[in-house]
This record gives sequence, structure tokens and C-alpha cells, in this order.
Amino acid sequence: MSKRTHSCGEVSEDQIGQSVTLKGWVQKRRDLGGLIFVDLRDRNGIVQIVFNPDQSDELMVVGDKLRNEFVVEIQGEVVARQDGQVNPNMKTGKVEVIATKAAIINEAKNPPFAIENKTDVSEDLRLKYRYLDLRRPAMYETFKMRSDISRTIRNFLTDEQFLEVETPILTKSTPEGARDYLVPSRVHEGEFYALPQSPQLFKQMLMVSGFEKYYQIARCFRDEDLRADRQPEFTQIDMEMSFMSMDEILELNERMMQRVMKEVKGIDITIPFARMTYQEAMNRFGSDKPDVRFGLELIDLSDAMKDSSFKVFTSAIENGGQVKAINVKGASENYSRKDIDSLGEFASRYGAKGLAWMKVTEEGLNGPIAKFFEGEKATSLLESVDGESGDLLIFVADKPSIVADALGALRSKLGRDLQLIDESTFTFLWIIDWPLFEYDDQEGRYYAAHHPFTMPFEEDLALMDSAPEKVRAQAYDLVLNGYELGGGSLRIYSREVQEKMFSILGFSTEEAKEQFGFLLEAFEYGTPPHGGVAFGLDRMVMLLAGRTNLRDTIAFPKTASASDILTAAPSAVSDAQLKELSLSVQIQNDQKTDGDNA
Amino acid sequence: MSKRTHSCGEVSEDQIGQSVTLKGWVQKRRDLGGLIFVDLRDRNGIVQIVFNPDQSDELMVVGDKLRNEFVVEIQGEVVARQDGQVNPNMKTGKVEVIATKAAIINEAKNPPFAIENKTDVSEDLRLKYRYLDLRRPAMYETFKMRSDISRTIRNFLTDEQFLEVETPILTKSTPEGARDYLVPSRVHEGEFYALPQSPQLFKQMLMVSGFEKYYQIARCFRDEDLRADRQPEFTQIDMEMSFMSMDEILELNERMMQRVMKEVKGIDITIPFARMTYQEAMNRFGSDKPDVRFGLELIDLSDAMKDSSFKVFTSAIENGGQVKAINVKGASENYSRKDIDSLGEFASRYGAKGLAWMKVTEEGLNGPIAKFFEGEKATSLLESVDGESGDLLIFVADKPSIVADALGALRSKLGRDLQLIDESTFTFLWIIDWPLFEYDDQEGRYYAAHHPFTMPFEEDLALMDSAPEKVRAQAYDLVLNGYELGGGSLRIYSREVQEKMFSILGFSTEEAKEQFGFLLEAFEYGTPPHGGVAFGLDRMVMLLAGRTNLRDTIAFPKTASASDILTAAPSAVSDAQLKELSLSVQIQNDQKTDGDNA
Repeated sequence: MSKRTHSCGEVSEDQIGQSVTLKGWVQKRRDLGGLIFVDLRDRNGIVQIVFNPDQSDELMVVGDKLRNEFVVEIQGEVVARQDGQVNPNMKTGKVEVIATKAAIINEAKNPPFAIENKTDVSEDLRLKYRYLDLRRPAMYETFKMRSDISRTIRNFLTDEQFLEVETPILTKSTPEGARDYLVPSRVHEGEFYALPQSPQLFKQMLMVSGFEKYYQIARCFRDEDLRADRQPEFTQIDMEMSFMSMDEILELNERMMQRVMKEVKGIDITIPFARMTYQEAMNRFGSDKPDVRFGLELIDLSDAMKDSSFKVFTSAIENGGQVKAINVKGASENYSRKDIDSLGEFASRYGAKGLAWMKVTEEGLNGPIAKFFEGEKATSLLESVDGESGDLLIFVADKPSIVADALGALRSKLGRDLQLIDESTFTFLWIIDWPLFEYDDQEGRYYAAHHPFTMPFEEDLALMDSAPEKVRAQAYDLVLNGYELGGGSLRIYSREVQEKMFSILGFSTEEAKEQFGFLLEAFEYGTPPHGGVAFGLDRMVMLLAGRTNLRDTIAFPKTASASDILTAAPSAVSDAQLKELSLSVQIQNDQKTDGDNA
Repeated sequence: MSKRTHSCGEVSEDQIGQSVTLKGWVQKRRDLGGLIFVDLRDRNGIVQIVFNPDQSDELMVVGDKLRNEFVVEIQGEVVARQDGQVNPNMKTGKVEVIATKAAIINEAKNPPFAIENKTDVSEDLRLKYRYLDLRRPAMYETFKMRSDISRTIRNFLTDEQFLEVETPILTKSTPEGARDYLVPSRVHEGEFYALPQSPQLFKQMLMVSGFEKYYQIARCFRDEDLRADRQPEFTQIDMEMSFMSMDEILELNERMMQRVMKEVKGIDITIPFARMTYQEAMNRFGSDKPDVRFGLELIDLSDAMKDSSFKVFTSAIENGGQVKAINVKGASENYSRKDIDSLGEFASRYGAKGLAWMKVTEEGLNGPIAKFFEGEKATSLLESVDGESGDLLIFVADKPSIVADALGALRSKLGRDLQLIDESTFTFLWIIDWPLFEYDDQEGRYYAAHHPFTMPFEEDLALMDSAPEKVRAQAYDLVLNGYELGGGSLRIYSREVQEKMFSILGFSTEEAKEQFGFLLEAFEYGTPPHGGVAFGLDRMVMLLAGRTNLRDTIAFPKTASASDILTAAPSAVSDAQLKELSLSVQIQNDQKTDGDNA
């Protein structure tokens, strides 16, 4: 084996006249006029190799045997292509390599799908042959970008004096939050470790330790039912810092994202990012992660509609609900009655009982409910929604949460459908002033809106007992183009406040102590004020690489049923293994969990 | 809260006359002549704060309240210390800060042990209060170094065009190797994931994918009984590369270690590192990870002793064993008969039935077995071992493996006891030409000496069937100062050779296919030649930081019984959790697994 001198993708006019040794995969082979042309591929690109019978018979014997995906070593001379044969679509298209020696390093069966960016094979097949799927150049580019993003973040945080610290994967199960993955202990019979949902408590411990600035690109785990944008294991860019205000933390993260965008995408973005309160985001966009690259904002008509003659609106308001509208500017021609019906069906998935609508024409309002809005009422409504001829007005009247969900989702759909979004831009936005708690009507209890370690606003502390739902959290989320990139908060660092928090969340003193006793105790030994952030790396890669599937950002992802098709995990284990762990399996029903559609 | 302007450790003469805002922990407070002196500590160091009643009464009220480990914010002016008060032992010893404002950010109870480098409290107590233990400056320094090592390695590998790729933690259980940690699947009843013992198969898949250069600083897991230098989870610097020869791989890793030593320790080391075959290491040092910083090599006297009148030696040789000696140069005065007896006890822990010995005096050989070595025999022996007056000769006669183990261990002990080792030097050594297999007498089968994916020497392939024990592996270990830092190999990349390997290891065709079918199949689709390395990061940190306990290199380590004392993991989980996983616990005996001594 000779030493490789160049990669295929880097062969250029600079090497003309030089002898090179290349190693890579046969992308394509064709015979033409007694010559054999081979496109040789490695991770950096493709270069054309020419097998010419003038060189030697052995060479042509090797050339004849080549098939797609064979691994070969080529020695040859770089020459300029003749004028008519320059390929402007190829990075190496001005040159080719005249082979002088060639050797087959390894053969290949015909792959189950072509190694090309465009593919229409099923994702299951791609995952079964993941090692071939990852050969597609677009996949390699995504993982190159993932590596670049991680590196840029590490470099930035190192420059900012952060320490990388690794926290345990075998840790303790806690009932709050999502479902834990458990790991049975062999030594401690009947006991279990849990895989961490985040390094939260450990990074707070490191702040108690005076490490001051911690980061980790950390693997986290949640045993939840999967959706397209969820995986059982995911990667979190995790940081925590002491003695810094919220403003300082946000500013640091803005500079970090600025550097990522610059170094990875070559895009200059402006900082500081806009900030919006949770309440404003919900009011204007019906979402706590609004895509603010386009309008179609929600308009609150609850006041205006109190005295409407349209009972659907007034009864919603009487029951404590809202009436809100979106003015779909100039879109009245785009949507037939049937189209609008299907928007109504879409809205109903978010709990809306129906979608009211009107079109604005030269003659005034038009549509099934137009009769309730005539004369002055029409004028007043048009003024409220800035309505002009050609606009489509859509309304939802319901509980505030349903109005927000349904209109927020409709807004996103309309923005996409009407192509109102400039997909080439990246717009970051902080959402701040979150509620500390969410009240669960069904369970009749409060949940932590972020997590139980989030610091309330100082001025709201007095409300903790009387009106928990009004307490605001010193929490912040970073939203990019309508996706939550991550978030964080300042943390509680007083035992008293933390105990109050646990108590509102329904922990008894004993439960709090059993689960989080070490944290409460740590707070008594000189804990600095601290706060942090966690970003989802997988999602960040997805957005920056312009992918739509989270699995395309993970080298060996799991399917929707949490299986790895390639290695066939999970799998049965031996009785001996179970016995060592003091476990037995009790199958509870014979519902098969087949149907591994990714 | 004001913004911190400086860290405590960085206050210097450069700031004299400036106003600074510091935040940190009270290391010590003392009253002296109406003034209060506070040593304020943060992660970068300690600076002296002076509370002077001339400033304000409120200031003194705060100063009076301060106790060790209180978290405080200090504003003040940096001044030069008066001549007599300069403290040359302190980085900031030429200056002090005259406080103008002070505020207590958080109070602290008296900690269970002092926050000082020197400590004699039990490790259990340190682990229970790990957040305080990590405040000790020496601990912080170790984790700073760990972070620096990781960063240097990442930067080096990035410069070398390696991609960081994350591989799964939830993966498939395989029977070969150490015991797996298992993770029950909720979705697939009765099935389990396993935590990876290494990313081996995934990194090989990435090579099949044409990623060419992969690295990851990866968490790995082994459910084995723990020793001082083992943890259930550990971190591996993991890399794999295609199209590179063994020489190229070793050379790359030498440059990597050179850069780590330079950037982290400020030490220039010479490359290339020495290389020694496994056989030579065993012959000369009785160890496959010899510390070559000192002599005391093993001398093979098997030939010379064949005709000895000392039956212990001759019968060992007749039974296929060896007689080997160490000449402990000039040490005959250092070891009394009693001392030598205890060396014999030490040797017996490694299986030696006894330790024969003689001292060399001006008059000749001396000691219990000297009578067997008189006249010419003595002369010949002294010549073989280069014996001079004052030397102590020790001998072990037994099976080669026992001779190596016992004399190898004795050599290390003697080297330490006699302080023959220059502890300030770092000596790297490659061990090469490993056997591919080890034969297990008890089980009557072959095991892979490294792992089943290691490539045999091409020229030994013919021996695979006839004499597996003679087949050499294209494997290499890197040894530093007598510790195995890591190792690797070129990998098999042909289905045929891999199947042969599995068959020698006792896999049936079905078993091989079930466990590793995807690997065998992958080899058929154009697999490049590849190889890799994995280093233990924890151990690397331990050696470079000069620590003796692996747990001091891990922020939140487990005890010898695999417990986390801080968070109390593992722990019991609820019946509901078990039911969701279709599991029940079957305690097999009531042997308690208490006694959590770290």
C-alpha cells in the first residue's frame, strides 16, 4: 500500500504534471472509445480517472474489473482536461488523472441503493444500511457541519474561560420530569441507576464547588414516545456559570451563536437578539417559539366582540374565552371555500371547535358570518384588523390556550403555504419572563414550567404562597426561526426558596429530602448565585444544515419505536444476564410492538 | 449585584490604585488591631481584603459577620502591601484590597472539612460532600488540566482533519468482552439495550461510510468488579482512520501526545517513541507495560541452570518452566533476611511458590542457596547477571507466566522502594507484535487478546487454522511510565477473515451472524483498510496530574461498590416504573451489599 498523497476532492490545476496517489470508492465507471473513465470518490469529492491502454495491459485488467463502490488505489498523473471536456459542475472538473497503476483494495457488492444525494428509498432501508446511507455526500456534509458546530462552541467557551467537565451517565432516578431510562445494578440487588435527562443537578453542584464556568456537550436521555423531532438519546450543549446576571448570560450566548453562524455558515448576524416576553409572544403569535420572519399576527378582538350578535363569539367571551383573528393579507383569492374548510379541519386538531372567516371585498365583508357584521360593526372590525379589499380574515373563539394553539399553528401553516418566509434568513429571538408554574387542571396541581430549580423574580417571591400562577421565572428560551433552540434560567440558590418550590410542586418534606436532600444541603455551604443554558445540538444542526429530519443529524439514530435497525437493538438477553441482575421479565400482554416505521 | 471586574487570583500590582469588584468565598478571616483581614478565594486564587473602620460602620458590620465559606461581594481599592507584609508564597502577595463596600451573597455553615489541599478525612466523607471536596484548589487544578488535555487533543485532531462523531449510548448487548450494563426497553417488552463498552463497531461502520477520520471523547461502560483504577463508566479518547498504515497511525499519535505534553505540562518530549515487541517486553521486564525509566531487568538463566544441582531450578525447567533473575544492583545492604522474606510474600501474590536469593559479597555468593553455586558455577552465574560485591540477586523458577508476573511485579516494587525512578520524567513506549489470541486453559478455548476485530499479520494468516497461538496481531499499546495509556490495532476488513476469527473464538455461524451480521455484511460493500486507537482519558489525567487515585480525576466518581454517595445512586424505583418495563425484581439471597468503602 502506498501512502496517499491527495484526497480526490482536492486534486486541482495546482497538481498538473504531478504524480499523485489517491484512494477512494468507484462512484461510476464507463468505457468510451477504448478508454475507461472512473469517477473516484472520497469524503472530499470526486475526481475523474482515465485508464488508457497505452499505459499497460495490467492497468486495463484492473480497470475492467472495477464496479461501483469498489475501494481502489490509483497512482497517476494529473493533466488538464481538453477544452470541450471541462466539467464546470465538478470541483475537480478542469483536470483528470491519467492512471499509471491501479489496485483493487476491496470489492463491493452492488449496493441496495445508489450513493447519491437524491434518494427515494425508504428511511428503514437507509437505516438498515446506514453505513451506505452515510456515504451520500449530503450526509457527510451534515456530520462535517455538526463537528464544526461543536468545535466552534468549544473554542468559544474555552476563550470565555469555561471548563469542560464530564458528569455521570449512571445516575439517580428522580420522579419529576420525563420518564427515566433505568439501568439495573448488579451489585445492589433490586436497585437501579437512571440515565440523566440532563446534567442539571451535577452542573449546579459544580457551581457550589466554585468551578464558576462549566460546559459539556452532554448526552441526555428520555424514555418518551418519539416524534419526528425526538430521540431517546440526544445531545445538549450544556453550560452553567456563577456570579453572572441574566443580561450577561444572554449576551455571552448571543456572541456564541454569532460565532457559530459566522464560522459554520459564513453569515453575519446582529446582536443583541430581540427579546419578547412570553405573554407578548402568546398574544401576538399564539406560540412561545414564534417565527418572527413574517407577519400574520394574532389580533385580539375580545373587547370589540363583547356585544356582537354572533353568538359563537359572545358565548366564548362570556365563558372566559377570547376571540382572535388573523388578517391573511391579500389572500382572499388564494383560498376557496373548500380550502378554508380544510384550514378549519387543521385548526380542529389543535382543539378549535371551528374556524370563522370572512373575505374583504370592494363591496365589504363577505362569507357565511358576514351578516353579523354590517354597517358600523363592519367598519369598526375592518379598522381593528386593518382590513382591505382582498384580505382573508380568520377567527377562532375559545379558551385562550386553544385560541393560541389553533391560530398559532394556522399562522405557521399560512406563512409556509403562502411562502411568506425568507428561508435564507436566520432570526434569533429570546423569550423571557416565563411563568414559573403551570397549573394542570386534570391533576389539580402545579408543575414547574421549566424545572424545579428555576429562580422566581425577586419581586414575585411574595406571590409564591398566594398566587403561584402569577409568579414569573427568571428563565429564557432562545428561538430560531420558530424552533426552540434551547433555554435556561437563573437558579434558586437558597435552601428556603428551593424548599418552598418543592412544596408548591407537591413534594412532602420527606420526599424532597429523599430526592434532593444533597442539593438542599449543598445550598447551606456557601452557594454562589448561578444560572445556565442548554441548547439542543441535534436541532441546531438540523436548522443550520437545512435538514427537516432530526435523524439525519444523528449518525446512528433510533426509529420511532426506539430501535436501531442496523445493529438490531434492543434485543433479548440471556437468562444468565438477567439472573445476575436479579431480574425477571414479566410480559404483560401480547400486544406486539412491531411496525418499526421510522 | 455589581459586575465582577476581576477574579481574586488575578489581582496584581497592575491594578494598584484601581477600584475592583470581586466575588468569592471567605477562605479565612482574622481580626487584628481593629482591622479585619479576609482571604477571599475564587477558582483562580486568593487575595487579601482589608476591612478598615475608617471606611464605614456598615462595612465593619458585614466584616464582623463573615465566616469561612461565606459567599461575598467586595468592592475596594487595590493597594501595595507595606514592605514587611509582602507574602512571597501568594500569587497576589504583593497587594491587598482595601474594601469600600461589602455584601454577603450567601452564608455558609461550618464545612465538615477544611477547604485545603492537604486533607486527612476519609474518601467517603469527601465523596458525600463532593461539592466541598472539589473546592480544594488541587482538585480544581486537576479538572482544569483534564479540560486542557481534552481541548488539546480535540484541537490536534481537528488540525489533522478528524471529524468528531457521536455514537449511541443505547446500543446492543454482545456476549464477548466484559459484562454489559443493560437498559430495559419499555416499548419492546423483555428486550434490553446495552451501554457500550467502546464505540468499536460504530467507528468501524463510520469507516465503511467513508468518513475516513473519526474521533470522539466517548463515555464507555463496564459492569465489572471495581479496583482502584477502574470505574463503571470511563472516558475514552477514541479514534479511527482509513487508508493509513500502522506507522502512520503511530506517528500521528506520537505527535498528539507530544502536543499534549507541551501544551498541558510545558514539557518537550522526543518522538518517535521507542517500540518494543510484546515478547521482548515480557522477556526483559516481565510486563506488557514496562516502566523503562529504570533497569532491574529480568535475566533468563534457564539455559545456565539446566544442569544446576539446585532441584527447584532444574525441576521448574524440566516442567517447561523458566529460571529468571533480577540483579538488584548494590542493594544487598538494603535488604535484611526479613525484608527478603517479605519480598517473597509479595511474589507469592503473583503465584510464585517462593523467591530464591543470594547476596554477592567480596568473598563470593552468600545466602541459603549459595551452596548450590560454588566455584565455576558461581563465576559463571555472576558473569550472566553481571554480579558484583554488594548486589542482591533474586530468582523465580516457575511457569513462564508466573515468572513474568512475579518478577515483573517485584521489579516495579524494587524500583519504587529503592527510588530508582525519576518521577519527573515521562517515558512513552509502544508495545507491538502482540499475540492475536490468548488460550484459556480452564475453558479450553481461545480468546481475542485485544478484540475480535484485530487484523492478524498478513504473513501469519496461514497459521490461523494450524497454530492460532502463534498468530501475531497488528496491534499496538502505548505505555507511559509503566501504565497502559491505551492501544489499538489495524482492523480486519474482509468478511472471510472476520468469519475465520469468530470461528476460532468459538462462535457458530449463526451466533456470529446474529451478533455481528451487520458488520460481516458491511464488509461486502466496499470497506477500506482501517485502524484506530483508544486512550483512557481518566488514566491520562491521573498520570499527567501526578495523582494516584483515578477517582480524583472524575468529578462525580463511583465508589468501589459502584455507588454515588452524593446522590445515593443506585436506588430503589417505584413498582410503576418496573411495571412499565415489564420487569420484576427477584432478590436471590440476603447477602447485603453494604460496606461502601471507596
